Amino acid sequence: MGGAPGHLAPREMTIRIAVIGAGIMGTDHARIIAEDLPGATLQVVCDISEEQSRSLADECGAVDSETDANAVIEREDVDAVLIASTDDTHADLAIASISAGKPVLCEKPLASTARDCLQVVTLESRLEQPLLQLGFMRRFDKSYHEMRQTLEEGVMGRPLMMHNFHRNVVSPGSWFTSDMAITNSASHEFDIARYVLGCEYTSISVSTPRRSDDQAAPVMMVLETSDGQLVNIEVNNNAAYGYDVRSELVCEKGSVHLISESAARYDLDFQSTERYPADWRPRFAEAYRLQNKAWINAINTGQPSKIAANSWDGYCAAIAAEAGVRSLTEGTRVAVEMEEEPAFYRLLKEAA
Amino acid sequence: MGGAPGHLAPREMTIRIAVIGAGIMGTDHARIIAEDLPGATLQVVCDISEEQSRSLADECGAVDSETDANAVIEREDVDAVLIASTDDTHADLAIASISAGKPVLCEKPLASTARDCLQVVTLESRLEQPLLQLGFMRRFDKSYHEMRQTLEEGVMGRPLMMHNFHRNVVSPGSWFTSDMAITNSASHEFDIARYVLGCEYTSISVSTPRRSDDQAAPVMMVLETSDGQLVNIEVNNNAAYGYDVRSELVCEKGSVHLISESAARYDLDFQSTERYPADWRPRFAEAYRLQNKAWINAINTGQPSKIAANSWDGYCAAIAAEAGVRSLTEGTRVAVEMEEEPAFYRLLKEAA
Amino acid sequence: MGGAPGHLAPREMTIRIAVIGAGIMGTDHARIIAEDLPGATLQVVCDISEEQSRSLADECGAVDSETDANAVIEREDVDAVLIASTDDTHADLAIASISAGKPVLCEKPLASTARDCLQVVTLESRLEQPLLQLGFMRRFDKSYHEMRQTLEEGVMGRPLMMHNFHRNVVSPGSWFTSDMAITNSASHEFDIARYVLGCEYTSISVSTPRRSDDQAAPVMMVLETSDGQLVNIEVNNNAAYGYDVRSELVCEKGSVHLISESAARYDLDFQSTERYPADWRPRFAEAYRLQNKAWINAINTGQPSKIAANSWDGYCAAIAAEAGVRSLTEGTRVAVEMEEEPAFYRLLKEAA
Amino acid sequence: MGGAPGHLAPREMTIRIAVIGAGIMGTDHARIIAEDLPGATLQVVCDISEEQSRSLADECGAVDSETDANAVIEREDVDAVLIASTDDTHADLAIASISAGKPVLCEKPLASTARDCLQVVTLESRLEQPLLQLGFMRRFDKSYHEMRQTLEEGVMGRPLMMHNFHRNVVSPGSWFTSDMAITNSASHEFDIARYVLGCEYTSISVSTPRRSDDQAAPVMMVLETSDGQLVNIEVNNNAAYGYDVRSELVCEKGSVHLISESAARYDLDFQSTERYPADWRPRFAEAYRLQNKAWINAINTGQPSKIAANSWDGYCAAIAAEAGVRSLTEGTRVAVEMEEEPAFYRLLKEAA
Repeated sequence: MGGAPGHLAPREMTIRIAVIGAGIMGTDHARIIAEDLPGATLQVVCDISEEQSRSLADECGAVDSETDANAVIEREDVDAVLIASTDDTHADLAIASISAGKPVLCEKPLASTARDCLQVVTLESRLEQPLLQLGFMRRFDKSYHEMRQTLEEGVMGRPLMMHNFHRNVVSPGSWFTSDMAITNSASHEFDIARYVLGCEYTSISVSTPRRSDDQAAPVMMVLETSDGQLVNIEVNNNAAYGYDVRSELVCEKGSVHLISESAARYDLDFQSTERYPADWRPRFAEAYRLQNKAWINAINTGQPSKIAANSWDGYCAAIAAEAGVRSLTEGTRVAVEMEEEPAFYRLLKEAA
Repeated sequence: MGGAPGHLAPREMTIRIAVIGAGIMGTDHARIIAEDLPGATLQVVCDISEEQSRSLADECGAVDSETDANAVIEREDVDAVLIASTDDTHADLAIASISAGKPVLCEKPLASTARDCLQVVTLESRLEQPLLQLGFMRRFDKSYHEMRQTLEEGVMGRPLMMHNFHRNVVSPGSWFTSDMAITNSASHEFDIARYVLGCEYTSISVSTPRRSDDQAAPVMMVLETSDGQLVNIEVNNNAAYGYDVRSELVCEKGSVHLISESAARYDLDFQSTERYPADWRPRFAEAYRLQNKAWINAINTGQPSKIAANSWDGYCAAIAAEAGVRSLTEGTRVAVEMEEEPAFYRLLKEAA
Repeated sequence: MGGAPGHLAPREMTIRIAVIGAGIMGTDHARIIAEDLPGATLQVVCDISEEQSRSLADECGAVDSETDANAVIEREDVDAVLIASTDDTHADLAIASISAGKPVLCEKPLASTARDCLQVVTLESRLEQPLLQLGFMRRFDKSYHEMRQTLEEGVMGRPLMMHNFHRNVVSPGSWFTSDMAITNSASHEFDIARYVLGCEYTSISVSTPRRSDDQAAPVMMVLETSDGQLVNIEVNNNAAYGYDVRSELVCEKGSVHLISESAARYDLDFQSTERYPADWRPRFAEAYRLQNKAWINAINTGQPSKIAANSWDGYCAAIAAEAGVRSLTEGTRVAVEMEEEPAFYRLLKEAA
Repeated sequence: MGGAPGHLAPREMTIRIAVIGAGIMGTDHARIIAEDLPGATLQVVCDISEEQSRSLADECGAVDSETDANAVIEREDVDAVLIASTDDTHADLAIASISAGKPVLCEKPLASTARDCLQVVTLESRLEQPLLQLGFMRRFDKSYHEMRQTLEEGVMGRPLMMHNFHRNVVSPGSWFTSDMAITNSASHEFDIARYVLGCEYTSISVSTPRRSDDQAAPVMMVLETSDGQLVNIEVNNNAAYGYDVRSELVCEKGSVHLISESAARYDLDFQSTERYPADWRPRFAEAYRLQNKAWINAINTGQPSKIAANSWDGYCAAIAAEAGVRSLTEGTRVAVEMEEEPAFYRLLKEAA
C-alpha cells in the first residue's frame, strides 16, 4: 500500500524471547511471537541444528540464531524463554531458566518422569513468585472454557463423568507405542479434566483392544477422582481418519459437549461432509495464541495467568500417566499416589 | 509472573495509528491494535465526545486522545488512519486521509451514496498506489475463504446460486428501516457474493413480507449477475432469536455451506442446544483481527492485500444497494447500472 | 419359525384396493398396501403393460392383475382406487373413480392443468362427501408437522417467510425442463407451504440461473401470500449431489427448520460424512405409509383425513404453477388468480 | 370419506395373537398389532388387572380380554403369544408358550437370572425349530443396521472399540438402582454390541461415580470380547435431560456413529435447539414395528428372522449382566464365563 513509510517507534517495553527448538512446535511458537504478540520480540531462535535455527530465525525475523540452549538462556538480551525442544530436554532447560531467574513457557510435558517434574517443582517453590508456565494450551480453548464456566454457573448440577476422546493420525511405522499414548498424548486430557473438574485423580484402570497390524493400539482409561467422579479417556494415535478431540462433561442435570469447529460443509457425491484436520494445529491455533498472549501479559504484570498450568500441574499429569502405564502392564486398577501439594502452589490457586 | 522486568525494546519500525470513532466498532479496532497487532501503535483515539475518546484511549493505552478528526489526520505522529465513526462521515474522512497521503482502513460503507463513493474512487485512482482498504471483514472469514477456494479447485463445478441469510437482533424501537437493511446490513452480502463469485450484478428484485408490529420487516432480494448466477439475500434485522449469518453456494455438481461455529453443545431440559451470539462481534472477531493484520502488512510492504476490499468495491456495494431500494419502492426488478471500472482498480485485480 | 400353522381369519371388514400404475410410485403403494396396511387388501394391480402389472401383482400377492384402468375402476370387487399412473391420466381416472362412487387416493398432480383440476373439483363438489384424497404426502411428514404445530403453539410468533429447497438427482439426458420443475416438482412446495401457513398465494416471481451445460437450470421462486408472507422456493432437479429437501419457517420471534434425517455418520479419510439418498423414497417412506393409513382410516370411518390434501388443494397447486411458468417466460412478477373456493371445500376445512 | 362401505374380506390366513401384559410395552405392542400388522389379529389382551386388560382390548379392538395368562396361552383361538408382562414372569410364560407349541415374542429380559434363561434355552433346544423371538428391538433400528453393514463392507477395517451411551429419565424416587442399570437397562447394549461385533464377552469392569443425592448413579462398564475388542457402556438412568442413546463403532480406519434423529430444529432466545424425547418409545418406534413385522413373517414362513435375538442371546445378555453386578460389588475386573452354545443355536446362526 503506497505512500506510507514506516516510522521509528518510540522506545517501548518489550519482552525479548528466546525460542528453543525449531521443530513443529518451535516453528509455531516463533511465528506467533513474531506475528501476533505485540510487546514481545523474537530475539533468538535456538536449535541443535544450526541450519534449522537459522532458517526459522530468518523466516520470522529473529534478531539472532543459536545452537547452544544453555548459553541462550544466559544471554543478557534474552528476557524470557520458550522451551519447544524434544521432550527429554524440557526439565533441564526449565531448571536452567528458573535458575537464571527468567520466565519460561515450557511445552508439555514438564519432564519425562514424575520424579523429574518434582525437581522443577522443588526448585521453583523456593522462589517468591512462580517462573514457569506449562504449555497445556487446551485451558485456553473456548470449548473447555465453556465447560468450566457451565460448572461455575451451576445449571448442570454437579459433574459425574467426563468422557474424552483424543485421536491422532500418525505416519505409518511411527515410533508411537500404547505406553506413549498414556505418557505423551493423554497428558492433555489428564490436565484438562483436572482443570475443568478441580480435583485430583485417585486411581486409573487402563484397557486396550487388539489391533490386527503392528501399529500401537488405542488405550481406554477410567480414572476416579477425589470427589467421586469418573474421567474416561480414549487415546487413539492411529485413528487414521483425522485429528479429532471430543469431550463431554456429564453432570447430574445435563451434559456439556465440546464442539470441534469446522468452517464449511460440502454436499457432493451423495454425501454431506465436514473435514478433519491432519493434526492438532488448526484445532488449537487460537488456544496457542491466547496462551502465549497470557504468558506475555503475566510477565508484564508480574501476575501469573489464572488459567495457565504451572509446574505442579505438570507433575500431576506425569504421576497419573505413570500409574496408567503400570495399570496397562499389570492389567489392574492402580492407585494414583501423589506427593502433597506444596503450599507455594496451593496459595497461588487460592489467589486465583 | 515474578523476576522478569520488561526491557526497553530496540527502536523498531511501527505504524502509528489514529482510530477515529470510539463507538462499538472503534472500540473493537482500538483493542485489536493495542493487543493483537505487533508493528502497530495505537497513537490517537479520536471521537467527537471528549469523554469517550479519552476513556477508550486510557483503556487501550493510546498515546493521545482528540476530538477533531481532521486535525488528527494531519498530525505528524499519525502514520495511518482507521475510520470507525458514523457512516455519514466516512467519505469525507477518507478523502481527507487520502489527500494527506495516509493509508486508511475505512469501516463500511465507504459513503452514504454511490455518488459519494465515486468521489473517493476518482481521487484515489489518480494516485500511483491505492491508499484505502475497506472494512468488508467477511473476506477474511475462513468459511467464505473455503467457499472461494472450492470454486478455484473446481470440484463443485460452476456456481449457479448463492443463498445468503443475514440476521440481527436490534433493540426495540430501533431506527432501522427496511431501506437500511438494504443499504447498511446487506452491503456485507453484496460485497462477499461479488468477491466469492468474481462477477458483477446486473439486476435486483426486492420483496418484503408484512410484520404484525411496527418493526422493520425483513427483505428478500434476488440479484442476477453478469455471469448468469442468482444471488439471493435475506436480511432480517429483527430476527429476534440471535445474530446468525448463513450462506450456501450452489454449484453444478454440489454445494458449499458456511458453518457458523459454536464452541459447545448443551443437553438440558429435553433439549440439545447451541448458542447464538447477540451481535456480530464474536462471529467475526477473528476476521477483524486478520483484516487489520493484513492492513498493517500492506502498509509495511507497500503491497495492498489481495483479499481486502478497496474503494471500487465500496462503490459496487453502494450501487447495488441503491438499485435495491428502488426495487423495494417500485415493486419491480431494477437494473444495476454501474460506471465502468477505472483501469486503476482493474490493474490492481490483475496483479493480485 | 416352526410349529405355528396360520389360521383362517374370521371374516373381517377389509378395503379391496386397485392400484393403477405399476411404475415406481405404483410399486411403492402396492407394497405398502400389501405389507403395512391392516384392513386393506391389494385386490388388483393395473398397468397398460400386462407384464408389469402381473409382475407387481405376483410380488405383492394381489388377487388379480389387469391392463384396462377404466374396467378395473368398475369392478365389483374393487372398493377403492389408488391412482399412480402417468400424470396425464390422473384427472380422467379420478373422474371415473368419483363417478363410480369409489374413494380414490390420487398421486399428485391432480391434473396437468388448473382447468382440468377444476373439472374434478366441480364433479366432486356436487357429492355429499368428498371421495378424493391427493397424494401430497409431505403433510404426513413429522418435520412439517412440527412446523405447523409450532405455529399453533404461537411461541415463534407470526410467520414471515418460508424458505424451501427441493433438490433432485435426475439421470443425464433427462426430459426435465425448468417449466417442469415448476409444474411437477414444485407442486409439493406449493402445497406444503399453503398447508403450513394456512393461506393462499397472490403473486409469484421466478428467476433462473444459467447452467453451462444443456441440463435444466434450477428455478428460484418468490411467492407472496394473502397474509403478507413470502414463500421462497428453489427447485433444482439437477442438484447432482443427492436428494435433499430443506425448509425453514421464519417467524417474528424465531425459526423452525426441517431436519432431513440420516441414520449414521461416518468418519473416514479426513471427513465426517452423512449420506444423501438418490431419490425421495427413503426420505418420505414413513410419510407415504402414514398417508395411506390415513386414507384407509378415512374410508372406514367415512371421515376424510384432516391432514390430507383434497381436489381443491390440487387446483391451488396447479394455479400457482401456471402463474410460475408465465413468470418464468415473461420475466416479471405474475399475479396468482384463483377461482373462488367452493363452499363444499370451505365447509370441510371448517369441520376439521 | 363418504360412499365406500367396507366389504367382507375373503377368508385369509391371519395369526391370532395374545398380548400378555397391558402396561406401557403391552399397550404399544397391542397398538402395533391392531394398526400396523396385516396378517395378524389382536385376539386376546391379558393382564392381571381385569380393568386394564379390558380397557386395552377395547381401545385396540381385540376379540377378547382375560386375566389368566396361562389359560390364554392354552386357548385354541390363540396362535401366538406376545409376552409384555413384568420381567419376573417372562421365563415362566415363555416356557408355557413353548410347551404349548406356540410361537412367542418375549420382551427382554428373557429371565431374571442367567440360570432361568438356561431353562428356556434347554427346553427350546429340544425342538426342531425355535419358537421364541426375544424383544431386543434395536437390532431392527436402521442406525445399528448401518453399523453392522459397514463392518460387512470392510471399508472401516476391523472394529476396535464400541462406545455406548444409554440415558434415561426416571421419575424421582424411582426404584432403579445401579445394579438394575446393569441387569435391566444395559441388556440392550450387551445384546446389540454382541450382534454388531459378532463375538462374545470375556470380561467386564464396572465403575460408578458418586451422586450428591440418593438417586442411582450411572455405571461405566468396559467389556473385553473374544476377538480383542473393547465395548464401553455408560448407563445413566437419571440422566435428567432426556432419553438419549448414542453409539460409536471405532474401527482401524475410521468410525461409524449412530444418529438419534430429530425432526426439527428451533431457533429461539439465542439458542438453536433440537428436542429429546422423554422415553425410548419415539426413538425406537420404527424398530418395534419392524421387529413385530419380522415376527409375523417368521411365523408365516416358518423361518426365524435372521436379525432377531433368540433365547440364547437372552442368556448371553444375562450372563454379562451378572458378571457386571459382581464387578460393581467387588470393584475388580470379572470374567464372563458362559456355558457352551448349544448346537441348536449355532446351526441357526450358520443357516442365517
